[in-house]
Amino acid sequence: MTEINNQAVVVRSRPSNIPQAENFQIETRSIPALENQQILVKNQWLSVDPAMRGWLADADNYLSVPAGDVMRSLAVGTIIASKHTDFPEGTQVMGWFGWQTHAVVDTSAIVQTITASDIPASLYLGVLGLNGITAATALDKVGQPQPGDTVVVSTAAGGVGSCVGQLAKMQGCRTVGITSSPEKMQQCKDTFGYDEVLSYREPNLSARVAQACPDGVNVYFDNTSGAISDAIMPHLALHARVVVCGTAAISSWDPVPTGPRVERILLTRRARMQGFILFDHMDTYPDYVRQLEEAIRQGKLHYREDVSQGLETAPGAIAQLYSSQNTGKRLIQLPD
Amino acid sequence: MTEINNQAVVVRSRPSNIPQAENFQIETRSIPALENQQILVKNQWLSVDPAMRGWLADADNYLSVPAGDVMRSLAVGTIIASKHTDFPEGTQVMGWFGWQTHAVVDTSAIVQTITASDIPASLYLGVLGLNGITAATALDKVGQPQPGDTVVVSTAAGGVGSCVGQLAKMQGCRTVGITSSPEKMQQCKDTFGYDEVLSYREPNLSARVAQACPDGVNVYFDNTSGAISDAIMPHLALHARVVVCGTAAISSWDPVPTGPRVERILLTRRARMQGFILFDHMDTYPDYVRQLEEAIRQGKLHYREDVSQGLETAPGAIAQLYSSQNTGKRLIQLPD
Repeated sequence: MTEINNQAVVVRSRPSNIPQAENFQIETRSIPALENQQILVKNQWLSVDPAMRGWLADADNYLSVPAGDVMRSLAVGTIIASKHTDFPEGTQVMGWFGWQTHAVVDTSAIVQTITASDIPASLYLGVLGLNGITAATALDKVGQPQPGDTVVVSTAAGGVGSCVGQLAKMQGCRTVGITSSPEKMQQCKDTFGYDEVLSYREPNLSARVAQACPDGVNVYFDNTSGAISDAIMPHLALHARVVVCGTAAISSWDPVPTGPRVERILLTRRARMQGFILFDHMDTYPDYVRQLEEAIRQGKLHYREDVSQGLETAPGAIAQLYSSQNTGKRLIQLPD
Repeated sequence: MTEINNQAVVVRSRPSNIPQAENFQIETRSIPALENQQILVKNQWLSVDPAMRGWLADADNYLSVPAGDVMRSLAVGTIIASKHTDFPEGTQVMGWFGWQTHAVVDTSAIVQTITASDIPASLYLGVLGLNGITAATALDKVGQPQPGDTVVVSTAAGGVGSCVGQLAKMQGCRTVGITSSPEKMQQCKDTFGYDEVLSYREPNLSARVAQACPDGVNVYFDNTSGAISDAIMPHLALHARVVVCGTAAISSWDPVPTGPRVERILLTRRARMQGFILFDHMDTYPDYVRQLEEAIRQGKLHYREDVSQGLETAPGAIAQLYSSQNTGKRLIQLPD
């Protein structure tokens, strides 16, 4: 191995609110020698995710990243040195490699090996990564859509939501997306093929949901909680399924905010409301990757990426996520 | 057939609140001739149920009983005349025969034929009737208790709750009952075998639930909604199931009352909350009757009945239900 160094984005301080560029610094670090079973990955794509805000918050978080550590992230890279026979040099992998150019890790950091050569590798951080696999797994296992069902998706243009909408449509459902700006509404119609798109800024969202779902809502895929859910829940159909996948509309759960009680709706509709976290379902991850790869090859699954070039764009990237200017999966591309 | 008349409890007026004796009158009515496929049932046991309040309320209710009609109720009786070959004279049946001594009905009014001669017929209105079958079906299909699970039951001494607690215990669960008075708490321990019993009047119910459920709540069988649920929900274990079977603690849903949002709990625990109404599951009703009959024969399933004698005790019986003096399934026995 030639003498190379690692460039890493290191946590400098904890933000009180949304992480900013000044909460990080870029450091040059030497690359340690590989121990037995370890691999050296050269990163090509780094992921930027809303969850990073939580990992940097002061509050108790078992995934908290301490100051001085390389920022945690998923990344796609190529193994350029290996002491593990199952993962030889040249293998392309997606996993927990962090915001850095090079990562020395145990193979437990690998989420998946990338074998498809006809699919852009960056997709394994987006539509074929946690977002897409969350969408596919939660919709299938909890939402259980049937052909003809009406499926409502909150954050319809988001990484998870846009994939849910398209997968439901492929399964013969009528899809109704809830999003914010006119631009995102247009994107939901043109790119993600929703049958109807509503803005959550509508003055009477509940009445608009009723209009858009004359036979009621069979599946509500919820990434928001809050006022958006309150407008949708009264329109659940008999035996409806509510997938609780995120709570983006609630900024703090301490104290727990109040909202309209759901028990009467769940009882009279015999409906089900269920929380979903992908990490309970890693055994079926490869199955859903194969399913979505096939949809990508057939041109049926659309996605948007928002790419910036170079490690130096990483420190400010989380703040950009929260400016709502992003229109696709936020990625950082590193030079070859 | 000898010349007999029917004595019937007829709705006289709609109560604005809890139905009282003066809302009914007892009338003597002649018994019409049977049409083809009809049966004449001589009632032995009449049921008194909390749902009757709803059937008599002014509000829109598709089960509303109009003034001048015989009060709707389940009853156990014997067929004394029949124009349906599947239901010969002498057959004992449970069904929608109303608060009256004799009922001429289509056989669609029959919920079940009673064949077990070794079991008191009154039980088919209680622990072997809608209450018991609701408990068994909802616990099995929605609660899905596993041996070792902690099962919490609200209205633990009630017709449904007391059966849930005992069935869960038979399946190897630890049972925690929530009820009101010291008398009912004692009954929960002595008769229904709960491992722990809490009063919902406890000043800090949530802390007491946490103490009683050190490993969290795997199944919460909820007949109440409201403050009792709010004390239990934060203690759900991973992958918990909440059976929403009733909302007795909420007196009005118009406007919908607010409470702590449940989405974060459902998400972080990957928990499921699901409404249950027995009428979706009538296909498996006979299976659960057989299961509970067997438990009765083995002396494993305990119940309490609160019986008054004669049709003239019916008009005041609903009000007594709501006085919380009742300590078992409220029944009216008619003379042979």
